[in-house]
Amino acid sequence: MTDDGKEVKEFKVTPIKNGTVIDHITCNTALKVLGILGLTEGGVNSTVSVLLHVPSKKAGWKDVVKIEDRELDAKEVDKIALIAPFATINIIRNYKVAEKHRVELPETVKGLVKCANLNCITNLQEPVESKFEVMSKDPPKLKCWYCERELEDISEYIV
Amino acid sequence: MTDDGKEVKEFKVTPIKNGTVIDHITCNTALKVLGILGLTEGGVNSTVSVLLHVPSKKAGWKDVVKIEDRELDAKEVDKIALIAPFATINIIRNYKVAEKHRVELPETVKGLVKCANLNCITNLQEPVESKFEVMSKDPPKLKCWYCERELEDISEYIV
Repeated sequence: MTDDGKEVKEFKVTPIKNGTVIDHITCNTALKVLGILGLTEGGVNSTVSVLLHVPSKKAGWKDVVKIEDRELDAKEVDKIALIAPFATINIIRNYKVAEKHRVELPETVKGLVKCANLNCITNLQEPVESKFEVMSKDPPKLKCWYCERELEDISEYIV
Repeated sequence: MTDDGKEVKEFKVTPIKNGTVIDHITCNTALKVLGILGLTEGGVNSTVSVLLHVPSKKAGWKDVVKIEDRELDAKEVDKIALIAPFATINIIRNYKVAEKHRVELPETVKGLVKCANLNCITNLQEPVESKFEVMSKDPPKLKCWYCERELEDISEYIV
């Protein structure tokens, strides 16, 4: 759609020169991905496109997030894996896909998620980093390495 | 971008057959608009596109929200006016703009916003609907008709 709003058929998202396309996000999870990347609070200063509930050949429906002028660090990618285990990260440089990889959950998740048990050693202001065993990757299920509490809604506990 | 992720240059949002395009949303307000429309909780079941921080001829930067298979009711449009006073609502039917209008704040706002003053008569479980005088449209500023409290962050109080 052009800026003057007259032409709707040509609603088009222009390609980005540099940035990241996160594709194959679990449907209805893109806004949580924005939260993980700190893009929901305080606003953004480069163009961000979010597509919710679009057709996917692989999974029926998916979400897509495209962020201009930003590449993700390893910690951010691991956090995305916790809520969107089939996401692919495409790094765009000079209009081309410079790198492409699928997110992957490791066997243990350290320091990314807070334990739901308030009495867990990791929540008691001791110098103990949180650590979870990955019980299942799809959907992601985590169990605290210290208190054995299983996390139900992981996205609520991502730090 | 196609589903297999190979081609990034052609990242394109296909036109919608029926639905609503909300254009000229105040930059970095689109996620609040999604909240007003109930699209942030529980997910969506038609395609929704959100563009944050895109160039605008009129305002420098703007946000755009496009929702397939949904038209907005008057109350929703008035709520959007409270946070994005320059937004335009384009209703699409059969790929064409069937209706286009700009949101507009009335002189008084009734029942859309909760007063920030917990002791206001409108918050005391009396059968009194909230009512605000519109002090300024850009940025929107409201004053309670009953207790005269001015609302600072309107988006926090939209019901």
